[in-house]
Amino acid sequence: MGRSVTAVLTEIMNQQQSIPVPHLTTALTGPLREIESHLLDRQPQIESWFRSEWKKSAAPFYTSVDLRNAGFKLAPVDTNLFPAGFNNLNPAFFPLSVQAIQSAVEQICPTACNILIIPESHTRNTFYLESLATLRKLLQHAGFVVRIGSLREELQTPETISLPSGEEILLEPIRRSDNTLRLDEFIPCVILMNNDLSDGIPQILDNIEQSIIPPLALGWSHRKKSGHFHHYSQVAAEFSTLLEIDPWLIDPLFERCGEINFKNREGEECLAAHVDHLLGEIRKKYEQYGVDHPPFVLVKADSGTYGMGIMTIHDASEIHELNRKQRNKMARSKGGQAVSDVIIQEGVYTFETIGKDQAVAEPVVYMMNHHVIGGFYRVHTSRGYNENLNAPGMHFEPLSFANPLNLPDRTREPDAEPNRFYAYGVIARLAMLAAAREGSDAVTEIAQ
Amino acid sequence: MGRSVTAVLTEIMNQQQSIPVPHLTTALTGPLREIESHLLDRQPQIESWFRSEWKKSAAPFYTSVDLRNAGFKLAPVDTNLFPAGFNNLNPAFFPLSVQAIQSAVEQICPTACNILIIPESHTRNTFYLESLATLRKLLQHAGFVVRIGSLREELQTPETISLPSGEEILLEPIRRSDNTLRLDEFIPCVILMNNDLSDGIPQILDNIEQSIIPPLALGWSHRKKSGHFHHYSQVAAEFSTLLEIDPWLIDPLFERCGEINFKNREGEECLAAHVDHLLGEIRKKYEQYGVDHPPFVLVKADSGTYGMGIMTIHDASEIHELNRKQRNKMARSKGGQAVSDVIIQEGVYTFETIGKDQAVAEPVVYMMNHHVIGGFYRVHTSRGYNENLNAPGMHFEPLSFANPLNLPDRTREPDAEPNRFYAYGVIARLAMLAAAREGSDAVTEIAQ
Repeated sequence: MGRSVTAVLTEIMNQQQSIPVPHLTTALTGPLREIESHLLDRQPQIESWFRSEWKKSAAPFYTSVDLRNAGFKLAPVDTNLFPAGFNNLNPAFFPLSVQAIQSAVEQICPTACNILIIPESHTRNTFYLESLATLRKLLQHAGFVVRIGSLREELQTPETISLPSGEEILLEPIRRSDNTLRLDEFIPCVILMNNDLSDGIPQILDNIEQSIIPPLALGWSHRKKSGHFHHYSQVAAEFSTLLEIDPWLIDPLFERCGEINFKNREGEECLAAHVDHLLGEIRKKYEQYGVDHPPFVLVKADSGTYGMGIMTIHDASEIHELNRKQRNKMARSKGGQAVSDVIIQEGVYTFETIGKDQAVAEPVVYMMNHHVIGGFYRVHTSRGYNENLNAPGMHFEPLSFANPLNLPDRTREPDAEPNRFYAYGVIARLAMLAAAREGSDAVTEIAQ
Repeated sequence: MGRSVTAVLTEIMNQQQSIPVPHLTTALTGPLREIESHLLDRQPQIESWFRSEWKKSAAPFYTSVDLRNAGFKLAPVDTNLFPAGFNNLNPAFFPLSVQAIQSAVEQICPTACNILIIPESHTRNTFYLESLATLRKLLQHAGFVVRIGSLREELQTPETISLPSGEEILLEPIRRSDNTLRLDEFIPCVILMNNDLSDGIPQILDNIEQSIIPPLALGWSHRKKSGHFHHYSQVAAEFSTLLEIDPWLIDPLFERCGEINFKNREGEECLAAHVDHLLGEIRKKYEQYGVDHPPFVLVKADSGTYGMGIMTIHDASEIHELNRKQRNKMARSKGGQAVSDVIIQEGVYTFETIGKDQAVAEPVVYMMNHHVIGGFYRVHTSRGYNENLNAPGMHFEPLSFANPLNLPDRTREPDAEPNRFYAYGVIARLAMLAAAREGSDAVTEIAQ
């Protein structure tokens, strides 16, 4: 009997390994292999360093990080503190999320039983609602009573939405009594924001007695991408010292430009100058590492998410040649907010592809508390190596990670699957640490 | 492509569910079903209660708990604070252990990199050494440098032992410089005891500067089973109030007897009287619940483990009829310590069986920090429902749990697999809480 169980388990493990994993389709993988081998050699120092950093800056409740792997460079390009996409994770690793949620709530509010999730208000996005249903399920497994309250002002009575998965979402109108949020008789101890506050902080959330996580100061009404990447550069520099590597290998360069008005073509000179300067900086690094691909940058709204207000630029002259449609697209980000500040970020090629049609794949890593709990690849068949894979209306195929990210294996090659996934988890945690430091700043700032 | 991945995942999940799980072969499952349904209904209160209890008494670093499931009763019968058997766990859940180890070390010694394991000294037990190799691997995955130091005095130079799994164990002689333990140049921050100290605390461990986990006061040189079950009864009473159930459904009754000398037949009267009294108490509860099986008790050495010095008794008269061989067997426990104190514990039937030959199965639950990380069944084809399945020289078949224990599903029946495993995890955590309270007492006591 013991044999047959072992056989079944072995088969399962083999099957899990048979989930396809993207390949790096570039010859220039030396720098990445070097990072991976340093990560493995110094794993004990790395984990110890992370532990002491989390003591200084508490990790956000949950975080997802978009990575790009160019073979010669592995870097985060976006860090989301109100993540969606939980439905794309591998259910085999749900127990990890449950354990991480329990550790997180222990620190925030040990006696909490009732959690109110405040989701995004765009209720017609089925993908988002499936993610919300999965998040709710994870919190329920962890032992909480979970209900979902909507910020939509027109919602006066509870509304049930049926999802393709068979799950149902009940959206309930939020009431406020004095400084307490409630849904009828349901009084939550914790308000879990899954709404990134692009539209600003609604009045109903002002001066609430209950714990709100993540803190409102981390919403896009206050947060700036340049602030995040400023912290990230600092984190990457410290980590690179520990690892004795060039920080550029893990850090996308960036510059910023304020007082832009795309509609009125104001600030174009400033933007073009920064683009030109940044392209020059990237070119120098490409020469240093023998990269024979053209450098490119992404221009993004400094406050914003959902891949809105993003463009890829290979030459500063393109800035002056933007047509009206392109300028209008850049002028407003999610929630219709006017874009006046932009970040110009080094574009990182993604050279991971999968399948015979060489679809481009971009890893997204999920974390809860400071633990990596899984992730997935955004796989896109009709986009290029240098394009953003998370744009509005884009239909990528999610490909769950088959491996957990916390089982590096020093007996195998540095680029063996468990070790490459470990590397993804480390770089994603660096971005999370930047967000944690950003969080400490933001909370201090909003309190002043 | 997304479809095929989903298909693979579904197949894996189905396969995992196809690992055989024992069945309850008793008609009287009403009380258990009632416990399971209360556990599900009150999961939020239970988890919140556990969280506040761990704040008061820190969970041991690692714990394994032997459970017995009689259908009408589900109770712990042994709690091990120096667990072996890690090699019997399902590798699919190793990531849970890694995460739990990281949380535990964070609390004990955040800057720790180097861990020294001190194992049992019986190096010829291959099963034990395979467990040691798995424990080492889990700690390595979690990012520690791990070496193994032996307390065997005759070990003067490192000794390598090759295991059937292909792993190797390097046992190194422990050195002491002033109050620091070391292996040559290797200086650990944490000493992880996987030796239960049945032989007492060796001098080399006295007044060591490094953190020793679990604390030496929890070794069998100080610990008593009756002390543990005294705390467990208290925990079970508090929990039963929360759940509104009869505490007996989860708590094995026990009494204790000191000043026994099996060899000289001293203390027999005391023992027989307690056995008789306890059998009477169990009989009353059996009548109350309509259990038509004969009650039985186990007589165990009060300090000891490894299933040594244990006998099953159905009638007090058996105490006077013990032959010389039986008395000799009871007289000494592991490490040759003389047995003078015994615990008389209510026997709990195990009515879980598996396979067409109805092999008896007993669940063992593993925890790290306060998280449940997996478990396995001890499956035995030639033992009865009322026998101890963990005796010296016994060859049980380990059957890894196919389910994690932290994914209860309120949409399914209370006795559906994920919910039964959740129940196992809850009862095991109650035993761990008793050990945590025992730990606080013991540390205070040894310090005085």
